[in-house]
This record gives sequence, structure tokens and C-alpha cells, in this order.
Amino acid sequence: MKAEIIAIGSELLTPFRQDTNSLFLTAELNKLGIEVSRKCVVGDDAAQLREAFREALGRAELVIGMGGLGPTEDDLTRETVAELLGRRLVRDEEIVRAMQERFRRFRREMPETNLRQAMVPEGATPLPNPRGTAPGLWMETGGHIVVLLPGPPAELKPMFTESVEKRLAERSRGVWLLTRELRVAGVPESEVDAKIAPIYRAAAGVETTILASPGEIQIHLRAWAGNRAAAEKALDGLAEKIRQALGDTVFTMRGESLEEVVAAALAEARATIAVAESCTGGQVAERLTSIPGSSNYFLGGVVSYANEMKTAWADVPAAVLKTHGAVSGEVARAMAEGIRRSTGATLGLGITGIAGPGGATPEKPVGTVHIALAAEGETKERRFLFPGDREIVRRQASQRALDLVRRYFENRGKDIRK
Amino acid sequence: MKAEIIAIGSELLTPFRQDTNSLFLTAELNKLGIEVSRKCVVGDDAAQLREAFREALGRAELVIGMGGLGPTEDDLTRETVAELLGRRLVRDEEIVRAMQERFRRFRREMPETNLRQAMVPEGATPLPNPRGTAPGLWMETGGHIVVLLPGPPAELKPMFTESVEKRLAERSRGVWLLTRELRVAGVPESEVDAKIAPIYRAAAGVETTILASPGEIQIHLRAWAGNRAAAEKALDGLAEKIRQALGDTVFTMRGESLEEVVAAALAEARATIAVAESCTGGQVAERLTSIPGSSNYFLGGVVSYANEMKTAWADVPAAVLKTHGAVSGEVARAMAEGIRRSTGATLGLGITGIAGPGGATPEKPVGTVHIALAAEGETKERRFLFPGDREIVRRQASQRALDLVRRYFENRGKDIRK
Repeated sequence: MKAEIIAIGSELLTPFRQDTNSLFLTAELNKLGIEVSRKCVVGDDAAQLREAFREALGRAELVIGMGGLGPTEDDLTRETVAELLGRRLVRDEEIVRAMQERFRRFRREMPETNLRQAMVPEGATPLPNPRGTAPGLWMETGGHIVVLLPGPPAELKPMFTESVEKRLAERSRGVWLLTRELRVAGVPESEVDAKIAPIYRAAAGVETTILASPGEIQIHLRAWAGNRAAAEKALDGLAEKIRQALGDTVFTMRGESLEEVVAAALAEARATIAVAESCTGGQVAERLTSIPGSSNYFLGGVVSYANEMKTAWADVPAAVLKTHGAVSGEVARAMAEGIRRSTGATLGLGITGIAGPGGATPEKPVGTVHIALAAEGETKERRFLFPGDREIVRRQASQRALDLVRRYFENRGKDIRK
Repeated sequence: MKAEIIAIGSELLTPFRQDTNSLFLTAELNKLGIEVSRKCVVGDDAAQLREAFREALGRAELVIGMGGLGPTEDDLTRETVAELLGRRLVRDEEIVRAMQERFRRFRREMPETNLRQAMVPEGATPLPNPRGTAPGLWMETGGHIVVLLPGPPAELKPMFTESVEKRLAERSRGVWLLTRELRVAGVPESEVDAKIAPIYRAAAGVETTILASPGEIQIHLRAWAGNRAAAEKALDGLAEKIRQALGDTVFTMRGESLEEVVAAALAEARATIAVAESCTGGQVAERLTSIPGSSNYFLGGVVSYANEMKTAWADVPAAVLKTHGAVSGEVARAMAEGIRRSTGATLGLGITGIAGPGGATPEKPVGTVHIALAAEGETKERRFLFPGDREIVRRQASQRALDLVRRYFENRGKDIRK
């Protein structure tokens, strides 16, 4: 089955707002074996709306409209689609009662205009909206399905899950979309693609999408399958081939974030960590503590921007700072070892560098970053030169710092306290 | 003039990728007085492509296509649009030379397939692409303009600025889009809207869009104007009325981020700051150091997750922790004062709270956050109860912490060292 998605709202045609509902809908439709063949954004304009629905119904079996179901004069979707399909609007007393009940609960008077939301095209099935006043609508017409959903994601998503998904699944034709997601740290996109393009190009029936962000490459594999077991096996085989080609730069086969992988490794090893950051400004601590339960393994971090703070908090000897400069392998090592010592953590991370745009010298250009990881009896240190602006340098640095921790556990086996 | 934008590429119809070029294009077109009346995403399919361009040309004077200009068999835009407009494709020897030159520079052999990119519809003007091999195309046909741009943002954006903007400006009809952007911290969207809706609804000819994110509301004002000076004045008048209605919760009238405003206030006052964070996990430090030149005012921060680190780094007396608990106004005060003392900063920020999902008690539910700001001779402390999940609680907490610093300078006048 093919679907088209129409996002409705003049604000979606400004530079400030973007339709993101369609990404959620696409993922959900794909799971049901339904492909999205076109997406459109139109303003709150009856003629534009009518044309968009008319065109879409000429091409796709399923047309999903989002937005324009509210109570104001700008909201034209219900009326326009009813008119296009030649259906009268009839007031649904059950919807009126549900709306009145909702307003009573919030102790507010229901404005007369809200009654518009209780108007339902003849033959349409209203879809309840417990999180708002605008009900959705399900209509069938000449072999086509039209679904109208409210625009706010907090209303659209549960309505799809509770009322639309099951109805569509009943019409699904035993086709599934199966997916896998690998993620890679610390390798440029061109290198990843050079290594794996011959593998995924040879895999018939699997779509491969490669997404690059600073310090991370995501590899999405998708297969439309009639025979689910066979397709699962084929996808797993392809994912494993790609993993072998990329080696230990792959940090997940299940689409987790790097901080989630590191958090799981720390928890499994019953290890703790502390961080001394300079150029990343707290981003490594922020990422590590974004995971629920992080207080079990994260003891603390310092953002030692001023040299005195590197000495006071991370115990970096003033002589090391003076001899080698704040951006040096020696200082990164001293930060990692010092923060480990002062917190009593299993592992200490030290990061110092030049995020730019200022602060560079001929020997230490913007993007120079030293990262050190201190453990019992050993400290590893690496120097990087990251391309890009301040934000991108900082992101790559925090990514490589977390990846250093991930690799530490992969190489040591899981329980480092043995 | 009205424009439609067609984004081309099957990967844009997956859940993983989204057209973001159209936001850039919309902003640029709007500046030229051109309104975007529809946006579409279509896959790499000749029939779909042809229909999308045919429909768009039936409605809009300007149609911009993005993507599908590459050298592979998937790239169909050039051929399909030429065929639709009834134009022959002719090889442009200058483009061939430019491509060969580019491959020579990167010391690579040019694949035969790249010659497809040198095929130009008769009568079309190629748009140079110094950042890639695919040239853009500018075509005029029966009162319509068709512009084809490459999909990668790093190629599309400079090509628009260097080759398209001027050509479109020559056709502009003396209509401009003027904009203002106010931002508000620490007030819920419903409260902002209740205060300003009567004001912006009464302002004819100005579109108002309100965008809410955790801890921040953006108010975008837009006016299409033939008489620029009059419209500037009307917009300024409306922005000022809105500012008055919202009072000192407005932190910018120029669309800056809160960290930019705080950075500017610190720099102007020649003041320094240090931060002791618990539940925000380094996010306040990360935001303060995201601004270039932050080493001038940011001395350092600690993420004192474990209680011992609150004592060691932020000088919080163990007795205060024991008596009041880590999440308390007293500890927030002690953190703010301690970090100020230990770094010698003009200002010290202390933040402690429960981001969730774990760690709550009946007296201290998830979302409880204490924020304190210590200055010479005075410390202010506030307790908040933020709704939402871990990420949203943390974002709101860092937002309110920065806003506390912003208000400190607003209320004190600029030079606090006097």
C-alpha cells in the first residue's frame, strides 16, 4: 500500500517551523508495510487544501492529513475534505458531550466555536482525542482511505497508536518493513562508505541509508519483506558483514547512542567515572548524566577552563602547565589522572584543546584536542585534529572521549575489577 | 511572487532524513518578498517527479527543485524537467572542463557517468558549483522560472547566495518581508499568549508565530511590506507593545540565545562566573562555553554529582548536606557561594535538584530544582518544580539558571564593579 502525507498549516511554510510528525508517521506506516510515496506541506487555504487532497487521492490508496482540525476560522481541513468527497457534515452529539466534559474538567466555559469540531462528514468514523478537543476522522471512499489527524504531536501520536494503527494493520497485506541500525564512531563518512558500499550494493532488496553527524555515522538498513523470517536472516547477515568490515569502530548494532553504550558498559563493570574537561566545556559530563541512573557510575566532573582550576580541581601540577602549555598531551594525562585520584573513580577522563575560533597558534591550530583516559596502572592519551567550527569540534571531542571509554571496556572484557 | 519548493530524493521519504534546505530557502525567498505557498517531497522516480513539477508550474511563478542532479542513475531531475518543458539536452563543454579540472585537483579520474552532469536543457543557464560537480540550472518558460539546485546543503546554500539571489532580486516587485524576534524565559506559553494575543490580533498585516520549547518562548513577527519605512515602524511599535506586556521576562528583541545575552552582559560588566551543578550535569557550563571567547568570563564549573564532590569542589559543609539533604535551598546557596569563593569569580551559580525518573520523595518530587546565584554580599535562591521528563527538567533548570544571571545584570545596571 502507498501513502501520501499532507501537513496543513501556514506556519509550516515559514522558516521557523517544520513538519516533524511525518517522520513519526513514516516510521509507523513502514512498520505496517506501507510506503510513503509523497509528502506535502500546504497552508491554511481552502483552494490549496482541496487541490492537495484531490491530487493525492488520484495517486495513493491512503492519504493522511495532519492539522487544521481546530476550532478557529483558520482550520479548514474538515470542511474542505468533506466537500471534496461530496459528504454532508453532521453534528455528532457524542463528540459534543466529550468536549463539554473536557471543558468542565478544566473548569472552563466551552466557546461556541468549538462546536465546529463536533461536525463529522457523513459515513466517517470519529477518532477519539483524549489529549485535546479536536477528534480525528477515518473515511473510506472508492477504495481509498482518508485519515485526518490533529497537528500537535502530543495529540497526533497517541491517536495514531490507539485508533489508526490497528485499522491499518487489518488492511495490511502481509508485507513488513524490517530495519537494523549500526552506529560508528571516529571514522569519516567517506571511509565508512568506501569499506561497506561493495557489501550493501550487492545486497538485493535492502535499502541502505548512511547519515553522518560530527563524530558519528549511522547506517540504516531496511528491507520490505513478505517472508519475515527469511528477511530477518538476510538483514542480520548483511549487518554482520558490515560490522566485520568496519571492525571495532561499530559501537552498536541496535541504534543506541554512544552515551547509552558507555553507561551500560560502566554499569555492567560496576565501574565509576569522573571527567576533567576544558574545551568541551561540560559536554561529556552532560552526555554521561543525560542517562537515567547515571549517579550510579558518574561521580563528578570539572570544567577547568582557567589554568588555576586545572590545578585546584584536577590536581594538574603548575609546572606541567607551564612547561607544556594547557593544550598538550601531558596536561590531558595529568587531568585524567588527577580527577581519577581526587574522586576515587575507576576511570578518569581528561580533555583539553582549542575549539576556536580564537586561541590557535601555528603549532596548535583550531581543532587540536588531547584526550586521555586514566585507569588503574595505565593512562592512554591521543591527540586529534578535528575539522569544523567551535560546535563541531566540541561535539567530535566529546564523541571521541566517550568512544575511548567504550573501547577500554571492549578491549578489557567486561569486569575490570577482577 | 509565489514559489513552490520540491525536494527530491527517496531517502527524504524515510523516517531518518528530513528536508531542511527548504527552511533556508524560505528565509532567503521571504527576504526577497517571495512567499512559499507549497513544499513537496518526492522520491527518485521519473513519473512522480514529472507530475510534481507539472502541478507546481500550474500554480506558482517560481518552482525550485532540490536534489537529483548527481551523476548516478537515480538522479533524474535534469532529464525529467527538460522533457517536461520540451527542451533538448545539450552538452555544455565549459561544464565538462570545470568538472575535469575539479577531478584533476583532487587527483582522481573522472568517471564517464559524470558527463551526464554537463547536459544542459536548451536555453537554460547553468549555475556554477565550486563546491561540487553538479551545476545548478536556471530556466524561464512561459512566465515561470524553474531553478534546479543540488541537494547537499553545503552546495545548495552558496549556489543560492551566489547565483540565484541576485537574479530573483531583479524580478522582485518592491515587496519585502520584515521580521522581528522576541524571546521570553520562564513563562508558560499559555500565559504569554493570554497576555499578547489581544495585541498581535489587533495588528493588521503582521503574522505572529509563537514557538515554545522547554523554558523558552519565541515570538516571531513578520510583515510583508511595499512601503518599507512604514512597515519597519509598525513592526517596531508592535514589538515594543509586546515587550511592555511581557515585562522583563523578554530577554531579547533580536532573536539571540539566552547564553548569548548572558555572555554579552558578563563581558560588558567585565564580570566572571563559575558554576556548581548537580542535576543539570554540566549543561549550564556547556551552554556558557558554547559562545566563542567564553574564557574571558567563564572561570570554571564543577558537576558535583556525589555529595563528597559537593564538599570537595564547592566547599559545601558536610553538616549542611546532612541536615537539609543534597536537594535543598541551603545546599544550592552553599554551592553558589562555595564555587564563587573557590574560583574568585564575580558570580557563583549553584544548582541542585531531581531530574528523574528516580530519586524522588513525597516532599521532593521529580522536577524539584533549587537554583542560587551568589554575588558580593548577597545570595539569591529560588525553588522550582518543573514538569516533564529528565531531558526537559534539565533544560528548564539550565534555562532558569542562566535567566537568573541575566536578571541580575538587568536589575543592577551594567557595571557591577562600580
